[in-house]
Amino acid sequence: MISTTIVGASGYGGGELARLLDGHPEFNVVQVLSNTFAGKPFAAAFNGMYGTRTGELVCAPTSDAPTGELIFLAQESGYAMRVADEYLSAGKRVIDLSADFRLTSPDVYRTYYKAEPASASIMEHAVYGMPELFRDKIKDARLIANPGCYVTASTLAIKPLLDAGMLLGSGIIIDAKSGVSGAGRSKNDAIYKYSEANEALRAYGVGGVHRHTPEIEQNLGVNVLFTPHLVPMSRGILATCYLPAKPDTTLDAAYGALVSAYISEPFVTVRPLGDFPSSKDVAGTNRVHIGLGFAKASGMLIAVAAIDNLIKGAAGQAIQNANIMYGLPETLGLAHGGIWP
Amino acid sequence: MISTTIVGASGYGGGELARLLDGHPEFNVVQVLSNTFAGKPFAAAFNGMYGTRTGELVCAPTSDAPTGELIFLAQESGYAMRVADEYLSAGKRVIDLSADFRLTSPDVYRTYYKAEPASASIMEHAVYGMPELFRDKIKDARLIANPGCYVTASTLAIKPLLDAGMLLGSGIIIDAKSGVSGAGRSKNDAIYKYSEANEALRAYGVGGVHRHTPEIEQNLGVNVLFTPHLVPMSRGILATCYLPAKPDTTLDAAYGALVSAYISEPFVTVRPLGDFPSSKDVAGTNRVHIGLGFAKASGMLIAVAAIDNLIKGAAGQAIQNANIMYGLPETLGLAHGGIWP
Amino acid sequence: MISTTIVGASGYGGGELARLLDGHPEFNVVQVLSNTFAGKPFAAAFNGMYGTRTGELVCAPTSDAPTGELIFLAQESGYAMRVADEYLSAGKRVIDLSADFRLTSPDVYRTYYKAEPASASIMEHAVYGMPELFRDKIKDARLIANPGCYVTASTLAIKPLLDAGMLLGSGIIIDAKSGVSGAGRSKNDAIYKYSEANEALRAYGVGGVHRHTPEIEQNLGVNVLFTPHLVPMSRGILATCYLPAKPDTTLDAAYGALVSAYISEPFVTVRPLGDFPSSKDVAGTNRVHIGLGFAKASGMLIAVAAIDNLIKGAAGQAIQNANIMYGLPETLGLAHGGIWP
Amino acid sequence: MISTTIVGASGYGGGELARLLDGHPEFNVVQVLSNTFAGKPFAAAFNGMYGTRTGELVCAPTSDAPTGELIFLAQESGYAMRVADEYLSAGKRVIDLSADFRLTSPDVYRTYYKAEPASASIMEHAVYGMPELFRDKIKDARLIANPGCYVTASTLAIKPLLDAGMLLGSGIIIDAKSGVSGAGRSKNDAIYKYSEANEALRAYGVGGVHRHTPEIEQNLGVNVLFTPHLVPMSRGILATCYLPAKPDTTLDAAYGALVSAYISEPFVTVRPLGDFPSSKDVAGTNRVHIGLGFAKASGMLIAVAAIDNLIKGAAGQAIQNANIMYGLPETLGLAHGGIWP
Repeated sequence: MISTTIVGASGYGGGELARLLDGHPEFNVVQVLSNTFAGKPFAAAFNGMYGTRTGELVCAPTSDAPTGELIFLAQESGYAMRVADEYLSAGKRVIDLSADFRLTSPDVYRTYYKAEPASASIMEHAVYGMPELFRDKIKDARLIANPGCYVTASTLAIKPLLDAGMLLGSGIIIDAKSGVSGAGRSKNDAIYKYSEANEALRAYGVGGVHRHTPEIEQNLGVNVLFTPHLVPMSRGILATCYLPAKPDTTLDAAYGALVSAYISEPFVTVRPLGDFPSSKDVAGTNRVHIGLGFAKASGMLIAVAAIDNLIKGAAGQAIQNANIMYGLPETLGLAHGGIWP
Repeated sequence: MISTTIVGASGYGGGELARLLDGHPEFNVVQVLSNTFAGKPFAAAFNGMYGTRTGELVCAPTSDAPTGELIFLAQESGYAMRVADEYLSAGKRVIDLSADFRLTSPDVYRTYYKAEPASASIMEHAVYGMPELFRDKIKDARLIANPGCYVTASTLAIKPLLDAGMLLGSGIIIDAKSGVSGAGRSKNDAIYKYSEANEALRAYGVGGVHRHTPEIEQNLGVNVLFTPHLVPMSRGILATCYLPAKPDTTLDAAYGALVSAYISEPFVTVRPLGDFPSSKDVAGTNRVHIGLGFAKASGMLIAVAAIDNLIKGAAGQAIQNANIMYGLPETLGLAHGGIWP
Repeated sequence: MISTTIVGASGYGGGELARLLDGHPEFNVVQVLSNTFAGKPFAAAFNGMYGTRTGELVCAPTSDAPTGELIFLAQESGYAMRVADEYLSAGKRVIDLSADFRLTSPDVYRTYYKAEPASASIMEHAVYGMPELFRDKIKDARLIANPGCYVTASTLAIKPLLDAGMLLGSGIIIDAKSGVSGAGRSKNDAIYKYSEANEALRAYGVGGVHRHTPEIEQNLGVNVLFTPHLVPMSRGILATCYLPAKPDTTLDAAYGALVSAYISEPFVTVRPLGDFPSSKDVAGTNRVHIGLGFAKASGMLIAVAAIDNLIKGAAGQAIQNANIMYGLPETLGLAHGGIWP
Repeated sequence: MISTTIVGASGYGGGELARLLDGHPEFNVVQVLSNTFAGKPFAAAFNGMYGTRTGELVCAPTSDAPTGELIFLAQESGYAMRVADEYLSAGKRVIDLSADFRLTSPDVYRTYYKAEPASASIMEHAVYGMPELFRDKIKDARLIANPGCYVTASTLAIKPLLDAGMLLGSGIIIDAKSGVSGAGRSKNDAIYKYSEANEALRAYGVGGVHRHTPEIEQNLGVNVLFTPHLVPMSRGILATCYLPAKPDTTLDAAYGALVSAYISEPFVTVRPLGDFPSSKDVAGTNRVHIGLGFAKASGMLIAVAAIDNLIKGAAGQAIQNANIMYGLPETLGLAHGGIWP
């Protein structure tokens, strides 16, 4: 068993890590750090964890030194870049769920995060933790930059079609929609309150200004126009991707490219032609469902990807990365089907 | 008072007509036709109408002859085209909420509705009932084709920008999202059941095949790629419109064009720059809220329109049309603010 | 027109007052006071009010002197008792939506609100504003204590059965359920956040400790055990009342008592025998729907009442009271049917 | 591995069995029977199962002979009593999720189910599958009557208090609330449609007539008044139980009785005094959470129990029973914490 610490365990991402790791046969959560719930059992923070082993662990403040060999950081941006070096020097492995190590360009980081990026020396160690793209690098990594939620759905929907030469490469539009848990647990904005979020669908970050834009572009190597929306549901992301196709691209060829890209991927399902996923189809799972259509009149492929924002979009992908780093079966602790209805 | 008949009063559109007309000072609902609830008080079909005058009207089967001078038809496609001629000949006025008289091209109708279109002779009488576009024609109309819900949101978001010469005219993408009531009351598909629709966001009609596509194109005079989504909420539509701008278009100029197009419109609000509507902002109203953004890097204007699909997208707009036809104040019976939260 | 001020206009109760009064033919809102939105148009606080007259009023801080002849106070407990005297002395009429003037016993107030009650001199002027019980007193009132939301549903379900001598008078249990808006707009507790409130049904105030208990008891003159629950919906209250019946009580007799008590009440509907209301049946209305059943084996009548917590449970009842005070038709501005679905 | 057949796999209960068993180390689902989806992969019925082993099993019609050694029956009432004898004679073990074998009194069955009960000879084999009450009998059972959902929550909340002599035994009221999935997948009633169920809270089966009433009474040995409600959420049951206490009962003593009754139960959590469960706390788990309060003035203990209606209220408890029957660890395949938020 590998001893494991979760830093920021009382947020939605950290809590999901705790829940998923509680049933994991190799990662043994020995420490849960949370300032809000310091001194209280973890189940006080996540009532769903009453009766579980992890639920009975008493939270400690984040000022406590991590005792685990493997450290999951589920903190606000800026935290990981302050502590990662020390943890790595101590021989630990670190998986960071924030954006601190995701962007390779310091200038892009500065522009979108209005803050100083991580140092070049630490960035050298960071591997971008999207297994479908970088599995080999992840195997040897000691510091993982876990991808953004929107980014995961968008990248996995588009990348194989780009790689297969099906797309023009310009004019890509991603209209993405997320459940409210994507905002995190600590936000007090009125728009996240039940009475105001219920029956309320809205766009935000309109104009290509959302922070996930450069991360998607880094993964794809092309520019995109990305617009997120807030949807009245707790969990789930759906990314509807409008993809200008090369003139000779056919739906069958594009579909074939998607299918063959993911034929061996344990967590990616390409839905039958003509069938499109609902966000609920992947709720509670680490899976990605992708449907593909073609609007012939516009020459536009339309790829629709669904993920659970807290699992494949955060905690689940982090565990998938950890499995790979430690040479474990990639699906360990993550194989369950979706909770439905 | 103008005597009024609602045909198909127990569907969501018909019921909304009854609810709104119950408080209308000039249209007097004298007859509610519904096969499902024939012989029962209308409040048995819409429990929210208990205690109202219209709620106590006893439903009659749709085989009964309409006694009202003004007839609202809220039936499936194909119904209105069978009866409209007779009603018009009897001197009545007809507002049809179905698609029977919306499309001017018989071939386009055949393609999208897989059925024979209305006859040319009846189509000559039909006026497309979107007041912001055709107010003058509506004044003299005796037969109104009430617009589609998605069509209303999309057209009103885009038309002024096209008219003002701000857009290239090609490459328009409309990513639209609707609450579940848009499917109507009679559908029994599992995806509309609470347990399955809740927490479930999905695309449908992917590939530009939805029936509202040609209606939007007819209004705009340009091609669009339209993709609808089903959102876990009862009411509301949000249309996110991606609009390739001419090179010299600025956000300020485009915003100005929107504002001046709607400055005198009683039901259209252009939100302050940088502010985007939520579907809930217009819930329970006949209003349209529009927000405008600009993704400079892509040269793309992004217009976001919100409506209540059952009101401005159906029953409310129908009453607005009736107000105009009868020379009444256009906002009569429709002036209320949104029910929120 | 009667000039009207709303104090606390940006809360859910105050906002609902503004929305309902915007369409009222006699009460003219001239002033909306809100510290949070001072200096901004009211529509910035309630986006649903864009395009309405009241939505364009600019909010002023609550330190501004009320200019209206009629004042609605929608503030936290303790506020009204500080200002009411001054407003009454100035010849104004006051309707208070808080609990300040509801309880006639100072000791009971102290126990449940942990604060000093209003002075005896001001309490002399206060009339408890439940029209179905105190219509005559309300006619002459200048200060109204507007009832609590749970209290309204519970009292109206039970009172006629008690008055008709159908009940033992002891052993009454009220299991009540409310949508999340009942918590108000300013609460930041995590349980009111969408992600945490969704799919979450819980009891609170268990053990008869909720503040609405003594108010119900004051109305009924008997003790009750009242337990509220938080339900994942924005609006609505359902009160399921378990009422030990006298041995010779029959369902028919009890039903008859309910029906005759409310036969002339404009806002109370007794549902047909065997039919029970849903909270949605009254959403957006000032109505009360009551269903009645009988569990013979237990000798227990079961009355189920549904209201919209923000309307009949707050703003609507306040306007109903104002209509009565000013000798206007009681349903003025409140006659609309329920928004459904 | 024990070969396992699920009959009725495309209903909510059957689908949940498939989902939970997919990750079970000892029960190997070899056959999924469903008439609706015969010939299609199980993932077509439950899209959340794409990518899982069970999701790829092709459904067969229920007329196919069960090949599994262990058979889960998730069919309508009346089915199991027709087939169980044959399966038992063939040496198989059967767990029935319907009500066919739950009620020991044939007359009570006739009264509540309006049909003939199972034969006395088959009833002799049936063991009521509530492990907390009948664990020892379950160990030797070959035919399990899996309890009702409301029954599970209610019984577990009340039984220990009765057994400990804390309650009068009469006057018990259970006000229970369930998410919409409790109605099953095949019901087409309008009240289960999203648009109509959303924001709609209602009582049903008012008057003690619900079929779970006699099952609760059989478990407790006393009469109860049980009233269910339909709540706008997909999953979850909350049972609020009003329990007249003996005069000398204290909250501490009653709480102690609950705690000691469940101290060794793997799936029952008694929440800290003063803390009450939300339905969401157990969503996705086989757990029961119970909170206890005391309304001194009424002499009433109030026990509130939360379960996931599809897991501890159906499929999870069925698997728990199977674990016990086969001498496996009771929590095998069921240990996970709740999915939250």
